[in-house]
Amino acid sequence: MLVLSSCELFGGDVESAVAPAIGIELFHNFTLLHDDLMDQAPLRRGKETVYKKWNATIAILAGDTMFALANRFMLKTKTEVIPTILDLFNQTAIEVCEGQQYDMNFETRDDVTLAEYMEMIRLKTAVLLAASLKTGAIIAGAGERENSIIYDFGINIGLAFQLMDDLLDVYGNEEKFGKMTGGDIVAGKKTYLYLKAIEKGASNYPGLTTEYQSREINPVTKVGKIKSAFDDLGIYSLTREEINSYWDRALHQVSLLGLPDARTRPLLAYCARLMERDY
Amino acid sequence: MLVLSSCELFGGDVESAVAPAIGIELFHNFTLLHDDLMDQAPLRRGKETVYKKWNATIAILAGDTMFALANRFMLKTKTEVIPTILDLFNQTAIEVCEGQQYDMNFETRDDVTLAEYMEMIRLKTAVLLAASLKTGAIIAGAGERENSIIYDFGINIGLAFQLMDDLLDVYGNEEKFGKMTGGDIVAGKKTYLYLKAIEKGASNYPGLTTEYQSREINPVTKVGKIKSAFDDLGIYSLTREEINSYWDRALHQVSLLGLPDARTRPLLAYCARLMERDY
Repeated sequence: MLVLSSCELFGGDVESAVAPAIGIELFHNFTLLHDDLMDQAPLRRGKETVYKKWNATIAILAGDTMFALANRFMLKTKTEVIPTILDLFNQTAIEVCEGQQYDMNFETRDDVTLAEYMEMIRLKTAVLLAASLKTGAIIAGAGERENSIIYDFGINIGLAFQLMDDLLDVYGNEEKFGKMTGGDIVAGKKTYLYLKAIEKGASNYPGLTTEYQSREINPVTKVGKIKSAFDDLGIYSLTREEINSYWDRALHQVSLLGLPDARTRPLLAYCARLMERDY
Repeated sequence: MLVLSSCELFGGDVESAVAPAIGIELFHNFTLLHDDLMDQAPLRRGKETVYKKWNATIAILAGDTMFALANRFMLKTKTEVIPTILDLFNQTAIEVCEGQQYDMNFETRDDVTLAEYMEMIRLKTAVLLAASLKTGAIIAGAGERENSIIYDFGINIGLAFQLMDDLLDVYGNEEKFGKMTGGDIVAGKKTYLYLKAIEKGASNYPGLTTEYQSREINPVTKVGKIKSAFDDLGIYSLTREEINSYWDRALHQVSLLGLPDARTRPLLAYCARLMERDY
């Protein structure tokens, strides 16, 4: 959607962006196969994950195959843009792997800072949204300045999106969100909310770190206690403000393009829908 | 070496083949990282494997990163050949993954045929040699016919090479080969030698299958017994003949190019060295 919307935004031939859009979608799904194996996650989108339904070998090899196939799809576009979009695609792939490695490392570290967390989600999530948008722009034949602006827009949208994901995990509507609320708390995942709480309330809640990391406490009790600490510290609003600030930066980026509202509306509406989903 | 030799063979600018050659070498090493994890192999080239020295996550992500990096190296060549060599590269990557999946599947199957085995090693090993050679040819600007001939040459060399690998595992010189002789027998690996023995001697050695698959027997006793059955059935000579037949086919392919011996000698000498290595 991001590749196609961006291509359209810059007045490009959307048809020649379809195969690269499929390529990026395939790439994204390949990373899920490998991530679910590394995270030992049993479920994805309400269904058994590949490594769980089949086995680790099949998750690894199906993932590798999807990545190769993704590269082949990236080639099915206008010849003159192939070197540029292929290089961006594979550079982004490397960054996504780096982000996932940071995420894995964070699991066993207890000194993760908010700045490190933001850098991790920039790599793991935001660069792929940014690269999708830039790919559409390149195919449309947009200029260097436009390519760079739409990339930065994507980074800000991506960061806002991931923070919203963290927020919804604690404060979301379970039925609509499709995940159990509090999953990150139960797993002791170092999210933006947790790291912000540590920053804000380390002195008032001396047991916060130990409790959050503990897997001994009953899950329902744990979620209740942590959520009440988050509430006391105003974590919901603080996260909301941060999301809004990235969203505002993204809107500012788009305004720099100087395009009529009618042109930018479809992309912005799509991103808003990504963000505001069901809570 | 194969990319560069082939580029030189067809009179191309070897400098512009260096980055793609690095790309293919990186790809090959990426597959080793993932294969060693899937095979739970503790050692590679006499050193601890990545998953063993670090962990499974690092082996998966370092592998994925190397594959992305490999694709970036494939882009550093003459613009006009990029779409063709990238498509060949990623098509080959898919085939290599298919070959590895067949290899994994064969472990738990007891009805693997020689034809299936040859198809597995074609995918797992031969296509990468063939694609390396074809990549060099494409960069050199060789014609369709030449590209196709050198690819077929690579398939035959690749098959001969893998059969030689199987042969050396049983009959090789341990010191020079760098692996323990009989490793495939101890592991009960379905190699060309074993499948040929089954084909030849199923009636004379009714216990062959059970013994070969067994992990209960003392390794030294097992290797001794199986090797003596192989000897009785003339497996060494039969495998040797098969290797020679693929080698002859490869030589025939090269002769079709109609190039002077001085031109084809470096590539053939290199392939001969691959084949005859130390036994």
